Amino acid sequence: MDLALEEARAAAERGEVPVGAVVSGPGGEVLASAGNRTLELKDPTAHAELLAIREACARLGSERLTGCDLHVTLEPCAMCATAISFARIRRLYYGAADEKMGGVDHGPRIFAQATCHHRPEVYGGIGERQAADLLKAFFAGRR
Amino acid sequence: MDLALEEARAAAERGEVPVGAVVSGPGGEVLASAGNRTLELKDPTAHAELLAIREACARLGSERLTGCDLHVTLEPCAMCATAISFARIRRLYYGAADEKMGGVDHGPRIFAQATCHHRPEVYGGIGERQAADLLKAFFAGRR
Repeated sequence: MDLALEEARAAAERGEVPVGAVVSGPGGEVLASAGNRTLELKDPTAHAELLAIREACARLGSERLTGCDLHVTLEPCAMCATAISFARIRRLYYGAADEKMGGVDHGPRIFAQATCHHRPEVYGGIGERQAADLLKAFFAGRR
Repeated sequence: MDLALEEARAAAERGEVPVGAVVSGPGGEVLASAGNRTLELKDPTAHAELLAIREACARLGSERLTGCDLHVTLEPCAMCATAISFARIRRLYYGAADEKMGGVDHGPRIFAQATCHHRPEVYGGIGERQAADLLKAFFAGRR
């Protein structure tokens, strides 16, 4: 989660909402890391999780990341949660909960849907304070 | 929807699940069209809708497609529906309903969530028979 927090800090420095994500392989090795780049790339799908998943898939040459884990500083939205399911991520570790945009433990609760074919193990609140502090400082600075 | 169906046919010829999507601007001009390329690109996020949205955003130089419409041959999944909301798509026209993977009128019903900030107008069943026939022929050919 430290690397994901670093990616979140780097995103904040670029003026992006500070969220960072890391995909690691079955042995814990880092396969991909990314921060949010929606503004820079002018791409509403360029959330940290989607960028990290796409990079890890490209690296492994597979559209599935079976046995791989994802660390992300914020609870994934419904778009990213669904992509996490499609990619067959084994374990999801997230930092701060997101009552407004979250799609894992809030809103559509993607993995709890009867139509969800693959559910990762989910561990929330990992590095929560640091992730939440980054977000609070970012939004406070914008007011 | 004819162009979306052409993209779906082209996807089937590439061995991909036949789904096609088109983003059009406020005046009806085509901004981007794409077929499903998850296998070719080895990218679980490479659904027709996401590829078309990303291409249209790149073309307009904006992460929002305000006033633009999306035609897609199959009911979008939760990932694509959420991206459609983020992109501020004005109207969504889809062909065949998808009871198993759909996220608009099935499963998580993304636009019906209280936490959904932007809801497009949704018109289902447009070109439904042709879209459904393409999918049936594709899966029948795989058995």
